[in-house]
Amino acid sequence: MQSKGSTDPEYMIKGKIRTIPNYPKPGISFRDITPLLKDAMAFNLAIDALAEKISEKDFDYIAGIEARGFIIGSALSYKLRKGFIPIRKKGKLPYEKIGIDYELEYGKETLEVHKDAAEKGSKVLIVDDLLATGGTAKAAAQLITKIGAKVYGYAFVVELSSLDGRKKLGEGRIIYLVAY
Amino acid sequence: MQSKGSTDPEYMIKGKIRTIPNYPKPGISFRDITPLLKDAMAFNLAIDALAEKISEKDFDYIAGIEARGFIIGSALSYKLRKGFIPIRKKGKLPYEKIGIDYELEYGKETLEVHKDAAEKGSKVLIVDDLLATGGTAKAAAQLITKIGAKVYGYAFVVELSSLDGRKKLGEGRIIYLVAY
Repeated sequence: MQSKGSTDPEYMIKGKIRTIPNYPKPGISFRDITPLLKDAMAFNLAIDALAEKISEKDFDYIAGIEARGFIIGSALSYKLRKGFIPIRKKGKLPYEKIGIDYELEYGKETLEVHKDAAEKGSKVLIVDDLLATGGTAKAAAQLITKIGAKVYGYAFVVELSSLDGRKKLGEGRIIYLVAY
Repeated sequence: MQSKGSTDPEYMIKGKIRTIPNYPKPGISFRDITPLLKDAMAFNLAIDALAEKISEKDFDYIAGIEARGFIIGSALSYKLRKGFIPIRKKGKLPYEKIGIDYELEYGKETLEVHKDAAEKGSKVLIVDDLLATGGTAKAAAQLITKIGAKVYGYAFVVELSSLDGRKKLGEGRIIYLVAY
């Protein structure tokens, strides 16, 4: 069933992702999901399609990575009736938290999560809009492990497969809707 | 029907909002919605209750304000089958955009929106987690007006009524779940 007819969700979703050349810097093609979010039908379809790709739903929480991961993760949490955990940039969470530094192409970034965001042993699906090199998703996974919870898997709208980010994520389940 | 029994959504939602004293600075009580988001039933209930309070649904888009407004706005967009517009902090949006500066208690903040985020004349509901002084929501409304769309109203999980933010928002519809 590899048909890419006009009723295929992936085909429709890809048609709503805008490619912005040379952003954020020369040579990079940025995949902009704002036209997808704007289109009510496409946005609903994307969330439903992600939910459907998660064949087993025996996990406890969805963790969204700030900020676009909040948009996808929150709607998916609502759809699947899971609790939502915000993984935030440094200094944004108000309660007791732990952080992790990780390397980006240029310089360092920090992510944080509340210490009580998930119970020990609970299972967490990590969600972001896009999987690139995997550095951010891996840092999020390490945070989830640090608070004693388990990484159930990862879900993305877009995977940039040439960057091979999934190698960095190990053997976890990885779900995506469209690949470039 | 002002009963505040244990099945009342507002009562349950308020029970899931954590008050953090002296955050982000001495004398301020921060209303932390992360326990609400974490509780799958309470989070779903909050989104459903917001959707129910919007008695007429003849608007086109939901605009969420970065970053907690993404969490509430996105799930509400999914629920109500509306397109979602991200209103972001400076330098985060990749396409043609316009911005607005506004005053916060300490210093200035900037919000931006894509120029093509909504069609001229379309109606937009602005969503954030919390209404305080109203400065951020008002700046978001001005951005929506700047791109030629109309502000349909505002929806918040929490209203800090003593700060009288709704005065700043004029006569627009304002919906909230719980007030302090």
